[in-house]
Amino acid sequence: MISTDVMVIKLGGTEGVDFSAICQDVAGQIQSGQKLILVHGGSAEANLLGETVGHPARFITSPSGFTSRYTDRQTLEIFMMAVNGKVNTLLVEQLQARRVNALGLSGLDGRLMLATRKDAIQAVEGGRRFVVRDDFTGRIEQVNGGLLRTLLTAGYVPVISPLAVSAAGEALNVDGDRAAAMVASALKANTLLLLTAAPGLLRTFPDESTLIRQLPFSELAVALEAAQGRMKKKVLGAREALEGGVERVIIADGRIDAPVTKALAGQGTVIFAPASPGITEKAR
Amino acid sequence: MISTDVMVIKLGGTEGVDFSAICQDVAGQIQSGQKLILVHGGSAEANLLGETVGHPARFITSPSGFTSRYTDRQTLEIFMMAVNGKVNTLLVEQLQARRVNALGLSGLDGRLMLATRKDAIQAVEGGRRFVVRDDFTGRIEQVNGGLLRTLLTAGYVPVISPLAVSAAGEALNVDGDRAAAMVASALKANTLLLLTAAPGLLRTFPDESTLIRQLPFSELAVALEAAQGRMKKKVLGAREALEGGVERVIIADGRIDAPVTKALAGQGTVIFAPASPGITEKAR
Repeated sequence: MISTDVMVIKLGGTEGVDFSAICQDVAGQIQSGQKLILVHGGSAEANLLGETVGHPARFITSPSGFTSRYTDRQTLEIFMMAVNGKVNTLLVEQLQARRVNALGLSGLDGRLMLATRKDAIQAVEGGRRFVVRDDFTGRIEQVNGGLLRTLLTAGYVPVISPLAVSAAGEALNVDGDRAAAMVASALKANTLLLLTAAPGLLRTFPDESTLIRQLPFSELAVALEAAQGRMKKKVLGAREALEGGVERVIIADGRIDAPVTKALAGQGTVIFAPASPGITEKAR
Repeated sequence: MISTDVMVIKLGGTEGVDFSAICQDVAGQIQSGQKLILVHGGSAEANLLGETVGHPARFITSPSGFTSRYTDRQTLEIFMMAVNGKVNTLLVEQLQARRVNALGLSGLDGRLMLATRKDAIQAVEGGRRFVVRDDFTGRIEQVNGGLLRTLLTAGYVPVISPLAVSAAGEALNVDGDRAAAMVASALKANTLLLLTAAPGLLRTFPDESTLIRQLPFSELAVALEAAQGRMKKKVLGAREALEGGVERVIIADGRIDAPVTKALAGQGTVIFAPASPGITEKAR
């Protein structure tokens, strides 16, 4: 029963996304009986703490154009503090203040997200390619759906920070959008909602009037090619989720009032799974 | 069944206590079938981070001689990062690396520890009394034992950081020793083990040759009077736990190899509940 009615919401970790409006809206959804899981980022907080403690963030761009945080062990511990310590705890606090019984987890907790460490990362800088080896970034292979189902059944709202654990037990930094996609797939969620600092997927970035309202699965490859910066990972996450059995993915604006309700009402970009074209009718 | 065989271990947050040796020993206990809950501190990390970010820790001494962290909102967020973000995650990581399926929680998660905020704290400094009002410190009133039982039954090892939530949903800093006592009481644990940077309770502090090996409940009041500094809270925690239905409390050395095994074998100070003098025979 949980497999069909759970919704996974990814909250951006970047500036602009309004956590308070999201929490307010989430509380309303929960009260109306919706089962929810939240996954968050925290880049902005991690960057800020890195600056403050004198170990500023550095980023790696892959040959195919994806950007990720260069995560040496010290950066990983800064990330633990900023993202798992501060962002996660503050989100749980905001939800608790709205009578939502939130429960924060990182992917290390109960081996929630098992990942393989990327030993050697191909990187490009100033046109030159090189290999980064001392990086603690991972690719999620498996999600402990049993733990999430246990918590949902007991009435808790899991709030997940983007850290994973390797088979050897090491902490790894993972991408929040793709973590949300893996969580949604593991639970065969009906909806994965990716909230971001844009109205959705844009045909011509950054022109917001070129918002794509509906995107068939078959056009995802083209959309992935066209997407800029962080949006690339959202499109990749969307594809992974839909391939993993999620019914629909919505990429929508996290900067506005009632962002969840508005996204479910059709604002943003809706992407449907290949074999389920009729979902809109039961959407709320 | 859980009510009689669970053990709660409090790991000090101060210098000297060897987390690695504790995790190693805990892994052995788990493998032999012991149900365990860990509660940790993190003062040293919080102090360090406070220094680094330019908001150093300040402490309040109560008229009766208890010391506690002065916790304004900024200090609370530093505490979240250092204690819930770093110490908790590193402990979970160390345990996961030893095949223990640890799961980190703060008292905000699932309303694990509900506390009342101390609105007005009596303080003494240089012989003068004053009142502190902008402090986010709490006294735990209730522990969500159901959540801990659910997790234990599912095979997880809860690792708890000393933050609580108020009825209004605010985060509050709480004392780790007393948090461990409340958790142990809620589960009617058979043993509460308080690991510290001393061999146990000393008759004459800091002379380690004056270690008290066994302390009847009836002498706790005298011991509380005699205890110095942080040890006062451990004795207070011991009393609360025993009054709350815990069978025995052990205060033992956390700086040594195999600290849990040695404490259970009789090293340290053992304090028994008023009505159960024969527990030693079934102790392992």
